[in-house]
Amino acid sequence: MPNTPSFPLSQASRAGSPQPINELIALALADPSIISLAAGLVDYKTLPVEIVSAHSPGILEKHGQAALQYGVTGGLPALQREIFLHLSRLEEAAGHKLEHCGPAQVVVTTGSQQLLHILAEILLDRGDIVVTCWPSYFVYTQALASFGAVPRSVDMDEHGIIPERLEALLAELHAAGQLPRVKMAYLVTYHQNPTGITLCAQRKPVILEIIKHYSALAGHRIVIVEDAAYRELAFSGEPGATPPSFRAFDKTGEHTVIAQTFSKPFAPGVKTGYGLLPLALVGPVMQAKGGRDFGSSNLCQHLLASVMANGDFDAHVKRLKAAYAAKGAAVVCALEKHFAGVQGVSWSRPAGGMYVWLTLPAGADTGPGSAFLKAAMDEKVIYVPGVFCFPADPARTAPVNTIRLAYGVTDPAQAAEGVRRLRAAWKKVSGE
Amino acid sequence: MPNTPSFPLSQASRAGSPQPINELIALALADPSIISLAAGLVDYKTLPVEIVSAHSPGILEKHGQAALQYGVTGGLPALQREIFLHLSRLEEAAGHKLEHCGPAQVVVTTGSQQLLHILAEILLDRGDIVVTCWPSYFVYTQALASFGAVPRSVDMDEHGIIPERLEALLAELHAAGQLPRVKMAYLVTYHQNPTGITLCAQRKPVILEIIKHYSALAGHRIVIVEDAAYRELAFSGEPGATPPSFRAFDKTGEHTVIAQTFSKPFAPGVKTGYGLLPLALVGPVMQAKGGRDFGSSNLCQHLLASVMANGDFDAHVKRLKAAYAAKGAAVVCALEKHFAGVQGVSWSRPAGGMYVWLTLPAGADTGPGSAFLKAAMDEKVIYVPGVFCFPADPARTAPVNTIRLAYGVTDPAQAAEGVRRLRAAWKKVSGE
Repeated sequence: MPNTPSFPLSQASRAGSPQPINELIALALADPSIISLAAGLVDYKTLPVEIVSAHSPGILEKHGQAALQYGVTGGLPALQREIFLHLSRLEEAAGHKLEHCGPAQVVVTTGSQQLLHILAEILLDRGDIVVTCWPSYFVYTQALASFGAVPRSVDMDEHGIIPERLEALLAELHAAGQLPRVKMAYLVTYHQNPTGITLCAQRKPVILEIIKHYSALAGHRIVIVEDAAYRELAFSGEPGATPPSFRAFDKTGEHTVIAQTFSKPFAPGVKTGYGLLPLALVGPVMQAKGGRDFGSSNLCQHLLASVMANGDFDAHVKRLKAAYAAKGAAVVCALEKHFAGVQGVSWSRPAGGMYVWLTLPAGADTGPGSAFLKAAMDEKVIYVPGVFCFPADPARTAPVNTIRLAYGVTDPAQAAEGVRRLRAAWKKVSGE
Repeated sequence: MPNTPSFPLSQASRAGSPQPINELIALALADPSIISLAAGLVDYKTLPVEIVSAHSPGILEKHGQAALQYGVTGGLPALQREIFLHLSRLEEAAGHKLEHCGPAQVVVTTGSQQLLHILAEILLDRGDIVVTCWPSYFVYTQALASFGAVPRSVDMDEHGIIPERLEALLAELHAAGQLPRVKMAYLVTYHQNPTGITLCAQRKPVILEIIKHYSALAGHRIVIVEDAAYRELAFSGEPGATPPSFRAFDKTGEHTVIAQTFSKPFAPGVKTGYGLLPLALVGPVMQAKGGRDFGSSNLCQHLLASVMANGDFDAHVKRLKAAYAAKGAAVVCALEKHFAGVQGVSWSRPAGGMYVWLTLPAGADTGPGSAFLKAAMDEKVIYVPGVFCFPADPARTAPVNTIRLAYGVTDPAQAAEGVRRLRAAWKKVSGE
């Protein structure tokens, strides 16, 4: 095109980057003999075909044209009520209560990802700081880059983000005069993507107090955005297996957003998520959503309201837990079998969700272009290099010796075989 | 909350504003005796309940879990193909052809509004200029404000935007050294919201050449974003009733995006739109969409692919045309009956879509808080004050004597009665 100048892309577009794992996933799809422990898709076999089939005719019979018309920006009121009940029951199961809020503070979004993206839009200016875990959910940290936000990160242990480290980071930012730029703490708290770690109940009020303390010093409210996408997927149904949310401790709800989704506990195909918002954010979120799509699919929302109302949703979640528990156990069991005693190798032991985090010895390299990734491909197994999961914290360098293992789509035997192949690849590369 | 500082909202959030018509629409909903000519909803009676009911079971039988799983970011390939065929047929019906493109340049979005929002994200920095019509679709011009974009506007006549005026504006911007900030021309070209005016075929190549000429002077490609949301809704099925798109004249497709939707010709409840993109924008749009939701509802996309494949979509559009034609004729006929001969009053005569633009005499005020709006409310009829539809062009002042009449949801008799009530209100206020 000799005479055609190019498009001048915006700062936002230039700052983003394509998802690096798409290429890996495309490779796996092209060769069915490859076992993919890379894709974060959900289990195919438990997707609720029967439930959706059973509810679909009734929705059109009962609601007719209304289900096919525009809805309201915040969500179908019947679905907002069901979601609020669901959130209340989750809190009650953890021995807590949702207080000082109601269904009108629930916003229904096009997946929870849309809510996270809107929160970035309404809260962040270029150069603002978002506190995250190290590592964290990488799709969101990459989306944050398009807003020009700077991630600053805090270490985790097996119980989640470490409060003392969070306090130390905020104290450092305060001393450097950067507290006015800190707007959000983004925390994936249940069976975290990518590590599988759950933030324990005991730490939540401590973290909330730290955030409140530094909010007062900053002169503005720092919001905790709790991404609870995997909240329903605890392997055990025991009371106490799933901690209360931050909102349970934040009695007036002024400091916390909780973001959840139907993608993990029900079906990604309905692309519906939701959040419970502080009162002060309801207006700004609605306004931003109005400019984007003035309301998510009304048809999908009618379907979900129907599925939640008659108990089919809860029954489905119960079945899911068992399916993911079997897969998670198979992966951890295979790691114990194949990697036990291997010097410097460790892994997380998730109590739910679909991820295990594997750490190879210091000095190992699992990243793109590494000998280990090549060896794994030769063994016909792929994974997400952990290096992709660390936010671009300007003060830190991401380690290159970690791996995210996702077992959402693989069956237990396949997942175990995938781990065996990783062991073979590691043998080859480490020269044991 | 004495001890709680407030949230510091971003520049983007502070620049936006809530949709001013929501309040009006809420008023109408609260009192069923009010005739609403305000809401831009679609006709209830023609919403395709039977078609959706007929296709739903087959989708789950045929595609099973795949319809409930995550899809790919750009859209379901089967739907991309159907959309491409549909766009090709629309062009052929207008005596033109779609060239140098294919289904891979189709992106499926959560309503066409999401595509427009993404285009703003990837193309606009704060202070950039978007050329629009005067008036224009106000939801988008308000969304543009959140990106810090500056609308500069061009007058229309009954055949759409006036090429000489467009050229004059660009020449003026060039002389002022502002051409480097001009990134996009946003044009609603078929039965425009809010005026009902269609841009005639003859002007399209002229406008395209003007845009190309000033792109060369700007040193970057200025993109024409053609919002064709109402393209299918021409009252007449005659060949020539619906002009070709800009893309038909832009042979290599380097300068034009066409944005369309299933909301108007099928059902807003599926919240699915799409665009045909220049090759150079496919990557940036996908990347931005990846950060927002990595793909619109897969279930809705399967439904639409099925509906398009067996011809039900086209048959439905044919029925719709007749329904909207009857409503449009009723409104124009009522205007002729009640306003004929009234000094200084004029109105548009749409050939499709769902809007008529009514201009009262210079000096009249139809805006919020006006005596006329109050009189109309007393007569139990509401409308959208035209002043809301003019973009915030810093060089112009919006007139306050216009009205957008939307007849999407009212039946013909009701719409005509609404016009009679407006006449009564005008009598009262003008003191005739």
